[in-house]
Amino acid sequence: MTDFDHLRVVLVQTRNPLNIGAAARAMSNFGVQRLRVVNPYEVAFREARSAVGASALLATAEKYDGVAEAVKDCRLVVGTTVAGPRRDLQHPLHRLDTGARTIKRQLKAGPVALLFGSERYGLSNEELSHCHWVMRIPTREEHGSMNLGQAVAVCLYELVRRAPTKTAPQKKERTPAASGDVERVTQALFEVLGTSGYVKPRASAATEENLRRMIRRMQLNTSDTDMWLGMLRQIAWKLGANEKNNK
Amino acid sequence: MTDFDHLRVVLVQTRNPLNIGAAARAMSNFGVQRLRVVNPYEVAFREARSAVGASALLATAEKYDGVAEAVKDCRLVVGTTVAGPRRDLQHPLHRLDTGARTIKRQLKAGPVALLFGSERYGLSNEELSHCHWVMRIPTREEHGSMNLGQAVAVCLYELVRRAPTKTAPQKKERTPAASGDVERVTQALFEVLGTSGYVKPRASAATEENLRRMIRRMQLNTSDTDMWLGMLRQIAWKLGANEKNNK
Repeated sequence: MTDFDHLRVVLVQTRNPLNIGAAARAMSNFGVQRLRVVNPYEVAFREARSAVGASALLATAEKYDGVAEAVKDCRLVVGTTVAGPRRDLQHPLHRLDTGARTIKRQLKAGPVALLFGSERYGLSNEELSHCHWVMRIPTREEHGSMNLGQAVAVCLYELVRRAPTKTAPQKKERTPAASGDVERVTQALFEVLGTSGYVKPRASAATEENLRRMIRRMQLNTSDTDMWLGMLRQIAWKLGANEKNNK
Repeated sequence: MTDFDHLRVVLVQTRNPLNIGAAARAMSNFGVQRLRVVNPYEVAFREARSAVGASALLATAEKYDGVAEAVKDCRLVVGTTVAGPRRDLQHPLHRLDTGARTIKRQLKAGPVALLFGSERYGLSNEELSHCHWVMRIPTREEHGSMNLGQAVAVCLYELVRRAPTKTAPQKKERTPAASGDVERVTQALFEVLGTSGYVKPRASAATEENLRRMIRRMQLNTSDTDMWLGMLRQIAWKLGANEKNNK
């Protein structure tokens, strides 16, 4: 059992079956299993459940007639909103990132509900009245209204984003090359540039230093130096072979 | 002008008009205006643009035939991926939050491209070879595959979620080169390698991708690309002059 077993995503008055499906998909992506729907448009809920590829998550979604019932077992109930004129909001408003931090703490103690309103109107004042506080997704004032599936994805992402992630170990390929090998690349390049006439036989030390700095900035790894040495040797060979033929 | 005027969201090979529309909506929500599409399913792009309520953002979306063209003016090119088995990934992989921090710094200096692959396959190795590194959305291993519109929303949210960071201004020397210039270096190198016999005239695409990735890892700055182009042109000229003399 993870802390997310305590999280209930509650979709209130959702109208579009695609949005119910999209919310379920985001939940599955981020490891949240418990979906509750309050008074959905009946057809939308049916269609979402019967859609091709509908998840087990949708099959076990619970349906409620009101917010009160849907959040009954939760110790913390959080509403969501977006930017824009909502002058009637009576609730404490938290930023999504700070709100998510509080939710994560609470998930260790018991069930938490996260509410999303209808596509058209968001959460009504009655629906919000069941919430302890409200979290705001930082959309622009000029275009605050957000797609429901995307809003769910963004909120759940904020909840998982700090969970310790297993990152793939760096591949061997990224092991920085030893300085000696980098210098061999530098010398090979310098030789090719000499043969081709890019630098004069007695080029200034400044030019060589310039090249050396540039090669160091490239942060070559072990396989890069091999590749560069191979390429430069082939070019040097070709330049040399041509020179010989010319004689 | 805000930093986000420098951000280009690039959708590669998108198949579903609803996803193009959803990506555009998320962009508008978070204040990102520049959408580019690469080789989309033609019908999808047309339908997305003509959809009811399609935004000005979609109307001004630019269409390209390849990734190289679409990211030509960008100084940083970042691919996106999700959790799951992608054992063939040859790129440095960053967490979304740390990657976003780097992108925000770079947006102060110049254009940045953020690439999203097709719904079915994500970004191909060829498409990824134009990227400097890859950012991963932390979906679950068991259900990594994410809806495109939701992926765009999550990435852009991560970019806006923090107040702009104050960072030391970039030194001139470190101004990353535009992708178009980096690609010119790649092509010039490829040509020299062809002439010198390091790669066969019909070299495998894998070799070219491998080279492209290596050059991207070098993180060339603007003066580096000038220097490399100068060196490679001189070498190419010398190789060509020798060849002529041999005839």
